[in-house]
Amino acid sequence: MKLSELSRKLGLRLVGDGDIDIVAPASLKNANANNISFFHNRRYKNQLLETSAGAVILKKKDFFSGAQFSALISENPLDDFRKCVEIFFPKVDRKAEISKKASIHPDAYIGKSVRIEDFVVVGKNSRIGDGTLLGAGTVVGEDVIIGKNCILYPRVVIYDGVQLGNNVIVHSGAVLGSDGFGYSRTDDGVFHKIPQIGGLVIEDDVEIGANTTIDRGALENTIIGKGTKIDNLVQIGHNVIVGENCAFAGQAGIAGSCIVGNRVLLGGQAGLAGHLTLGDDVVVYAQSGVDKSFEQGTVLLGSPARPAKITMKQLAALARLPDIIKNMKK
Amino acid sequence: MKLSELSRKLGLRLVGDGDIDIVAPASLKNANANNISFFHNRRYKNQLLETSAGAVILKKKDFFSGAQFSALISENPLDDFRKCVEIFFPKVDRKAEISKKASIHPDAYIGKSVRIEDFVVVGKNSRIGDGTLLGAGTVVGEDVIIGKNCILYPRVVIYDGVQLGNNVIVHSGAVLGSDGFGYSRTDDGVFHKIPQIGGLVIEDDVEIGANTTIDRGALENTIIGKGTKIDNLVQIGHNVIVGENCAFAGQAGIAGSCIVGNRVLLGGQAGLAGHLTLGDDVVVYAQSGVDKSFEQGTVLLGSPARPAKITMKQLAALARLPDIIKNMKK
Amino acid sequence: MKLSELSRKLGLRLVGDGDIDIVAPASLKNANANNISFFHNRRYKNQLLETSAGAVILKKKDFFSGAQFSALISENPLDDFRKCVEIFFPKVDRKAEISKKASIHPDAYIGKSVRIEDFVVVGKNSRIGDGTLLGAGTVVGEDVIIGKNCILYPRVVIYDGVQLGNNVIVHSGAVLGSDGFGYSRTDDGVFHKIPQIGGLVIEDDVEIGANTTIDRGALENTIIGKGTKIDNLVQIGHNVIVGENCAFAGQAGIAGSCIVGNRVLLGGQAGLAGHLTLGDDVVVYAQSGVDKSFEQGTVLLGSPARPAKITMKQLAALARLPDIIKNMKK
Repeated sequence: MKLSELSRKLGLRLVGDGDIDIVAPASLKNANANNISFFHNRRYKNQLLETSAGAVILKKKDFFSGAQFSALISENPLDDFRKCVEIFFPKVDRKAEISKKASIHPDAYIGKSVRIEDFVVVGKNSRIGDGTLLGAGTVVGEDVIIGKNCILYPRVVIYDGVQLGNNVIVHSGAVLGSDGFGYSRTDDGVFHKIPQIGGLVIEDDVEIGANTTIDRGALENTIIGKGTKIDNLVQIGHNVIVGENCAFAGQAGIAGSCIVGNRVLLGGQAGLAGHLTLGDDVVVYAQSGVDKSFEQGTVLLGSPARPAKITMKQLAALARLPDIIKNMKK
Repeated sequence: MKLSELSRKLGLRLVGDGDIDIVAPASLKNANANNISFFHNRRYKNQLLETSAGAVILKKKDFFSGAQFSALISENPLDDFRKCVEIFFPKVDRKAEISKKASIHPDAYIGKSVRIEDFVVVGKNSRIGDGTLLGAGTVVGEDVIIGKNCILYPRVVIYDGVQLGNNVIVHSGAVLGSDGFGYSRTDDGVFHKIPQIGGLVIEDDVEIGANTTIDRGALENTIIGKGTKIDNLVQIGHNVIVGENCAFAGQAGIAGSCIVGNRVLLGGQAGLAGHLTLGDDVVVYAQSGVDKSFEQGTVLLGSPARPAKITMKQLAALARLPDIIKNMKK
Repeated sequence: MKLSELSRKLGLRLVGDGDIDIVAPASLKNANANNISFFHNRRYKNQLLETSAGAVILKKKDFFSGAQFSALISENPLDDFRKCVEIFFPKVDRKAEISKKASIHPDAYIGKSVRIEDFVVVGKNSRIGDGTLLGAGTVVGEDVIIGKNCILYPRVVIYDGVQLGNNVIVHSGAVLGSDGFGYSRTDDGVFHKIPQIGGLVIEDDVEIGANTTIDRGALENTIIGKGTKIDNLVQIGHNVIVGENCAFAGQAGIAGSCIVGNRVLLGGQAGLAGHLTLGDDVVVYAQSGVDKSFEQGTVLLGSPARPAKITMKQLAALARLPDIIKNMKK
């Protein structure tokens, strides 16, 4: 595809040679004269200077005279690059068919254009929406509702009664609706399991990573809000209510009964203790451990997590402490 | 059910109107006049004051004059609430049957009243105890012994030779008996796998969370003691010996060859380094990292974990450090 | 087997009675007069002094006069013990056969002496090398290449297009090639999925633990270098390039686009933030959080991780801080 055509499709202003052929998107580092790349993360400024890419999607301010590449000027280079990837790699719909090697309860309802692969189990009274794909070996319990155009990759487990909205993506090995970690304890130290009778509701456009686990509620529902994206190996406990458009990176964990606002970001391996509330737009850095509630917009760092400015001052002071003590001795 | 009847069934003293109908248990926040709730966690004191619940199970000291709800007075409100949930939601036994779509080795022994769902595999010489349920897609290796009345949710894997006691619950995706992380290393930096020939013994009444992994021993057995409860995504290394009635929260990890006493509690994302011993009743707070052995009853906090009082003093001092340094300059 | 014979097979000098019969390897603690054990970790010095083992493999310097056991003198006791375990427990090859209950695409290529167990799925155009084992319930996508003599334990998932070298071991529940956590975000806070079109290459002799997840690249490949060993529940993000002979302990995490050198060791629950580079032979202690690049050979500790000597000085200073502040008041 000519760069000029790509420019038109993306609605981006072209600076440079529109006649070059673009055959694929690539990273700055690996791109050649027929690749289009993007510049978004200033950490990679050197890669921009040295790239062999034929074209780069970037902000106007990041373009420079003498650049060896043509430019597509964008307000949001990453998002325009995403569209570009979609142009070169359009989504391939797998053939809609129901494997004869699947086991579907006669009282399950299967929508139109559904693909159900080998060794899938769909339980009694469950409903699979139109256009949804159930990958090989996926197990859907009883009374489950799965919306339209969902993709469940192979070997997902959906416990009884869980509800998924539309356009939900669940990666392999994820377990949705398992029992929360709820016990009473008697004086002899013995734990007694409290039946976990709540449900789990996953709203539209959520993506859930590989081997992530989300527990059903103890009494009411665990809820994951619309558009929230969850990476691999994340744990979300019972009764947690997560808002919309959050993003939780790999191995983050949210203990039971937390209430998480909209657009909250959790870094990798970050953790929230139980029963706390985070306002909208809170950001928790990787490995931080949140032990109490914070208001909207707070940026948190450390374990225990405190507003990042405070933690960074403490870390800076701690870095100087050994020398300070040495000087005090003198 | 009349509250008076519930009061009798639970053996709890009723204060208030015994004639109200209770239709279900619910949380303080969501309960209505026909719900029974409980008060246990002082964090939710406000919810108790504002609840619309018709009845609340709580300690005598937490009841107050002018309460809008009737009360069931309990020494252990959470445990009595558990019994209450069990009354309203009695365990439903799934039908005992062996799916024709399962693959059971002719030399496996299957007890009475066992339920084996679709696409389960049971290997040679394995024994499945009476009343046990093997959920869809579960794989039981060879020479495995599973006790009575166990529940293995869909897609569990039990490696060869693992032993489970009675009343064990294993949630989906858990892997029991995988090889420990054991290698020798030669001067060229190459790792050489040491065959992991030990076993894994899970004693009675253990519950294991979704996608949790427990390795078999290198030479002898990894052992999880009776009544211990393990949450989701927990990792337990080879040769670990865990006592009875412990509770390990989500994403906690225990490195190889640790010895953990009885009633030890690990918070979420807490970790134990290898080859250490924790006495009975040790408590490790969330995200703490234990790097050496501690005696019984120690409460640990921090990474590295130290007795909580010590760590809390350090954290308090660190919080003041930036100002102290600023003042010293003056 | 006579100890003298074992000594010859291992090529180790015997000190003591070569006539004793050795029936099995065992740990120092549990060994009896017919067991052979090894001494490697000085933490277990007491166990060496008290062992009932008939024979112990150990370094010359660790042998002592008056020892109750015979000794095999080794430069690398753990590696020689490994060979010893292999002698007593030779690898048992499972019978090569293709289960009729597996689902293998007619356009898949299956090599010689392959074992494919029940309910395995192998997708279109995938190639399974000679001598490889696919455990029950494993799902291999389309266009996958798996080398020779690999072992995939039950319920592994290999996404489309992933490549595994020879002698790769993958434990149950591992997910290889899932989508990276890649989104663009628009001003409304909505995340838009960026198609993850890169691949995943696992080189020869890699071992991957249970329920570990490794994402495919966004544009190019995620790569795990030859001989690298990865424990359970480890997360490796998209575009990560890992060198040879690394070892990553349980629940470690590597965020996207990191470049990790050869022989890098990550302790349990350690984490690397995205887009950083670690040189060869870097060591990261358990629970440490690496937030920037470090050169070869650095030993890192803490969150944020700094060279261990620096962090240990800070921790020592912090431990004294409460008393220092108290004294300052006086």
